[in-house]
Amino acid sequence: MIARLHFITLVLLWGLVGVWIGSVHAEVDRERLLTEAGIYGTFAAFVLDDEWSRLESSMRIARLATLKGVVEQHREKLAIDVYLLRGLSDQADMLFRIHAMELRDTQEFLLDLQSSRFGKHLTGIKVMHGITKKPNYVPGFSDQVRTDLKTPSDAGEKPYAIVIPIKKSADWWELDQEKRTALMQEHTAAALPFLNTVKRKLYHSSGLDDVDFITYFETSSLEAFHGLVLSLQNVKEFRYTRQFGNPLLLGTAHSLDEVIEVLAQ
Amino acid sequence: MIARLHFITLVLLWGLVGVWIGSVHAEVDRERLLTEAGIYGTFAAFVLDDEWSRLESSMRIARLATLKGVVEQHREKLAIDVYLLRGLSDQADMLFRIHAMELRDTQEFLLDLQSSRFGKHLTGIKVMHGITKKPNYVPGFSDQVRTDLKTPSDAGEKPYAIVIPIKKSADWWELDQEKRTALMQEHTAAALPFLNTVKRKLYHSSGLDDVDFITYFETSSLEAFHGLVLSLQNVKEFRYTRQFGNPLLLGTAHSLDEVIEVLAQ
Amino acid sequence: MIARLHFITLVLLWGLVGVWIGSVHAEVDRERLLTEAGIYGTFAAFVLDDEWSRLESSMRIARLATLKGVVEQHREKLAIDVYLLRGLSDQADMLFRIHAMELRDTQEFLLDLQSSRFGKHLTGIKVMHGITKKPNYVPGFSDQVRTDLKTPSDAGEKPYAIVIPIKKSADWWELDQEKRTALMQEHTAAALPFLNTVKRKLYHSSGLDDVDFITYFETSSLEAFHGLVLSLQNVKEFRYTRQFGNPLLLGTAHSLDEVIEVLAQ
Amino acid sequence: MIARLHFITLVLLWGLVGVWIGSVHAEVDRERLLTEAGIYGTFAAFVLDDEWSRLESSMRIARLATLKGVVEQHREKLAIDVYLLRGLSDQADMLFRIHAMELRDTQEFLLDLQSSRFGKHLTGIKVMHGITKKPNYVPGFSDQVRTDLKTPSDAGEKPYAIVIPIKKSADWWELDQEKRTALMQEHTAAALPFLNTVKRKLYHSSGLDDVDFITYFETSSLEAFHGLVLSLQNVKEFRYTRQFGNPLLLGTAHSLDEVIEVLAQ
Amino acid sequence: MIARLHFITLVLLWGLVGVWIGSVHAEVDRERLLTEAGIYGTFAAFVLDDEWSRLESSMRIARLATLKGVVEQHREKLAIDVYLLRGLSDQADMLFRIHAMELRDTQEFLLDLQSSRFGKHLTGIKVMHGITKKPNYVPGFSDQVRTDLKTPSDAGEKPYAIVIPIKKSADWWELDQEKRTALMQEHTAAALPFLNTVKRKLYHSSGLDDVDFITYFETSSLEAFHGLVLSLQNVKEFRYTRQFGNPLLLGTAHSLDEVIEVLAQ
Repeated sequence: MIARLHFITLVLLWGLVGVWIGSVHAEVDRERLLTEAGIYGTFAAFVLDDEWSRLESSMRIARLATLKGVVEQHREKLAIDVYLLRGLSDQADMLFRIHAMELRDTQEFLLDLQSSRFGKHLTGIKVMHGITKKPNYVPGFSDQVRTDLKTPSDAGEKPYAIVIPIKKSADWWELDQEKRTALMQEHTAAALPFLNTVKRKLYHSSGLDDVDFITYFETSSLEAFHGLVLSLQNVKEFRYTRQFGNPLLLGTAHSLDEVIEVLAQ
Repeated sequence: MIARLHFITLVLLWGLVGVWIGSVHAEVDRERLLTEAGIYGTFAAFVLDDEWSRLESSMRIARLATLKGVVEQHREKLAIDVYLLRGLSDQADMLFRIHAMELRDTQEFLLDLQSSRFGKHLTGIKVMHGITKKPNYVPGFSDQVRTDLKTPSDAGEKPYAIVIPIKKSADWWELDQEKRTALMQEHTAAALPFLNTVKRKLYHSSGLDDVDFITYFETSSLEAFHGLVLSLQNVKEFRYTRQFGNPLLLGTAHSLDEVIEVLAQ
Repeated sequence: MIARLHFITLVLLWGLVGVWIGSVHAEVDRERLLTEAGIYGTFAAFVLDDEWSRLESSMRIARLATLKGVVEQHREKLAIDVYLLRGLSDQADMLFRIHAMELRDTQEFLLDLQSSRFGKHLTGIKVMHGITKKPNYVPGFSDQVRTDLKTPSDAGEKPYAIVIPIKKSADWWELDQEKRTALMQEHTAAALPFLNTVKRKLYHSSGLDDVDFITYFETSSLEAFHGLVLSLQNVKEFRYTRQFGNPLLLGTAHSLDEVIEVLAQ
Repeated sequence: MIARLHFITLVLLWGLVGVWIGSVHAEVDRERLLTEAGIYGTFAAFVLDDEWSRLESSMRIARLATLKGVVEQHREKLAIDVYLLRGLSDQADMLFRIHAMELRDTQEFLLDLQSSRFGKHLTGIKVMHGITKKPNYVPGFSDQVRTDLKTPSDAGEKPYAIVIPIKKSADWWELDQEKRTALMQEHTAAALPFLNTVKRKLYHSSGLDDVDFITYFETSSLEAFHGLVLSLQNVKEFRYTRQFGNPLLLGTAHSLDEVIEVLAQ
Repeated sequence: MIARLHFITLVLLWGLVGVWIGSVHAEVDRERLLTEAGIYGTFAAFVLDDEWSRLESSMRIARLATLKGVVEQHREKLAIDVYLLRGLSDQADMLFRIHAMELRDTQEFLLDLQSSRFGKHLTGIKVMHGITKKPNYVPGFSDQVRTDLKTPSDAGEKPYAIVIPIKKSADWWELDQEKRTALMQEHTAAALPFLNTVKRKLYHSSGLDDVDFITYFETSSLEAFHGLVLSLQNVKEFRYTRQFGNPLLLGTAHSLDEVIEVLAQ
């Protein structure tokens, strides 16, 4: 009960702080970072240490305020999303997805996060980076597939997020562009029926990490997502996939305030 | 002795609490969750920390009451089974099997479990998810096999539970439905003689975890179960299995109260 | 010196206790458990924690008494052997080999062991289970090989014990019984010259663990054992072995009292 | 604020100390170590322990002074570069690149580092060694490629550093020199367009570590670096690469003073 | 300074103790253990715990005296060499190479070591065993190669030691003796030019560990050793090598007193 009161007081205070921060830090153009090519995306997964769960509630709330502070401060340059993995993934408890013009800015955020009073309870488990690019193969697809690809995904809440790192085999990289385009058209056609229920975003990772791609998905129906993955496993392009997941990260998307509320408990 | 008395007192108290909880929380339709298609099954394995074994018995009992509380509270939405792995598996000490309409509900239970006073002693080792589906291949089987599949398994206690995650090769996913049906009919025929001694349940995991299937078994005869696995290794479909187990989890099924009694000691 | 005195006193006390225990607990028919088919064998390897080595000698001795107690108590149902791995294997410090009619009984022993005051210093590293069976292939062997197999192994101390888990490839399981018998006859012939110096015992593990077999050896000559393994690597059946060891466990066999004496120091 | 003041005071003191050290220790010919053949390069990655982040700022600064001292002292014999990995790599927090005439000198530095008061907070994660050699294949390349290889890389800051260990397959080592030269010429041609934006350095590791090569890169554009890696994955020589990264280490290059300033916070 | 004085005092005391030990313990015939066939060689690698680096110098010195004592005591039966890996290998800090007539004697040494006051700071990382044998293939080599093999290696200090465990493929073991001899003659010819700069010793491990061979090297030139490994990777026999290193251990050879001096600091 007392923890709850503490929490509410804090939220009120944050409201005031938020107004003040809002007036100081100009927020980055989030829309642009999330849609343009040439943007760096980072997926950083953490576990909370054992000490966290033993802290008194008031202490936890005070430290979560430093999380809030660090995130707000870096929103000037970065688009930061946060996910709860605990209970759904055995790899980690929290996931940050960060979009930036330069990975140095992302590094500064993560350094500040880890040296904050909240961050001292975090252990980094996995960091993956990718860069967004204009579609490689779409220009070579048939008119039908290119039209179908324009289907917008359903509006409405998509509470589940899934991150699947992918590594292709040497055989894949040896194929010529024409063969790869044909294989990717089949792959894309298999994915089309799921366009409205599953939102996708692709990051290119070769040289930035030990995988070739990071695929990111949002959905309200994990059954639909399972159907999508089955479809993609059934096309020939899947033969050229050396690593698919390992780890697959499954979590739920939340606002920073929601995550803070969960972690405060 | 004192621990034992404490324990008995606690069980009496729980009896009362149980009545009260029972009148507040409507329990979910467990039968439906365990038999229908489109249900999410989660296998969450944990180890107990070193501190647990050093707690005084009265402390342990008090904390186990929070385990009982969390489980009871979430039985409104979830079917929760619990298994003791310690001594039989080197992976973990306890296993929860959770059936839910939505994985978000499972996540809430596991978040509550881990933030309970008992849960602070748990470290998550493995979380696997799958979805139940109508049989894929059975409609294509011969009449004989379909009839044989209706054999009910023997009534009576089945104290052993085994969980085997399975990943199929890219070759498997490239086979057409007809070829896969033929292979699965041979696989099923090999399993038929064990239908009465080994109870099976299948979960589809592609996209929800790093495996394709989770197979769950209950038996009173591990020798019979060993025979079943040998039979399945001898059919052609086994060639398409890239991962079988790793980890295989072997444990014993218990009521929550039995598990609590063991952990209280 | 004092530790030594403590130890001797304890041994005297144990003598008395032993008589009393002996009169209460009827010991299981160990010979039967070690020779019959349909018996479950468990190999459970543990490391001692850092705290153990920092305990005062009198504390160590008191806790080792609980090890003795737990083992004695379960000898009513189980055949329990103990091995020292420390110094010879990097995997673990101690190994228990347990034979039982039911794995539930083994689990109860290991639960009691781990919750004993000694067991709180143990971390389980590896648990493997297998079942003993009548020889699969021997009936198909030539008369000569079947006669040779009856050679009894040399009497006398065999201080070294080696445990090698084995996993066969899918190719192996796809061979028909006749081909496997031929391959196993060649395998057996290669092993025959070592029958008198190396004692062997085979456990079948498919479905009980992530391997297919656990092979257990006792010898007084590790050079002879090395010769045996070289011979087995040279026959065609070895091509079908996907995992051989990993971990191979090498230790020395001791009576429980000897192990206690070593650990008391 | 106080930490900041402490830090500034310390920097002033270091200024004085630096003058004194400069007059005592003759610095090694860094240019020579970084350009000649027959030089040993070591990549040593470390994580900081949890205690570090809990130290008071003045303590941290005092301990960082020991880092400075150890590095300065060994600059007499070694060329030492330092990188921040935290936030960009999940493997480690800091990376040292050390060039030496003899690995014994590098070992002495790392022994001194780890026994310094700062070093007690470091855990070694990865140590890789390589030796620089005259180009193996360039003499066999066409005149055009040999001319193009002389393009100097752009001047200006190159803040990102990437380390990729590489292991070739047995097939590679079995090729004759002529075939390898042809493959390496294609590889080199694919890399040429990136010569001006990405600086490369190669270390030969066979027998010094578990990889065959360590490739080191500096760039101001990770997008260009990603392009380079894609190009190299597309040539035939890539088929002979058994390990590429695992781990790939990505970080930012800093002067020792900059790293100290970041770690002081 | 004080630590240094403590150290010198201790060395003086050890001098006296050494005389006394020398008169009590007859030292084993080290030369025989290092050259004969049928001798067991053990490589045991350890890391020092975090506590070690936090001990006061006088405490460290006192505990190192127990290391000295244990080694001296077992030199009656064993030939014990010690190496510093810290800074050169990421696997471990110290390596012991132990030669014995029986592995039981080695186990007793390692048990005594780990229960000594110094040993409580050690964590065992890797233990590998092998047996020395007369050359398998040399009798089948050409006269030229057999003559060349008699070249003695250069006298003089060889400060670097490298340990490379090796596992051969099933294909290797299936080859007949004649083919293996031909392959080994080519292998040996490739190694001949390095005989004078690199000293080699071979241990056979099948059945004693999870590898088939342990190769041990001493050299004063790591560049020459790199050249040797490159030569060996270029011959056909290398195709049959499934594991080469993993881990490769690189360190420097020291007398026990030198190691004690380094660890005392």
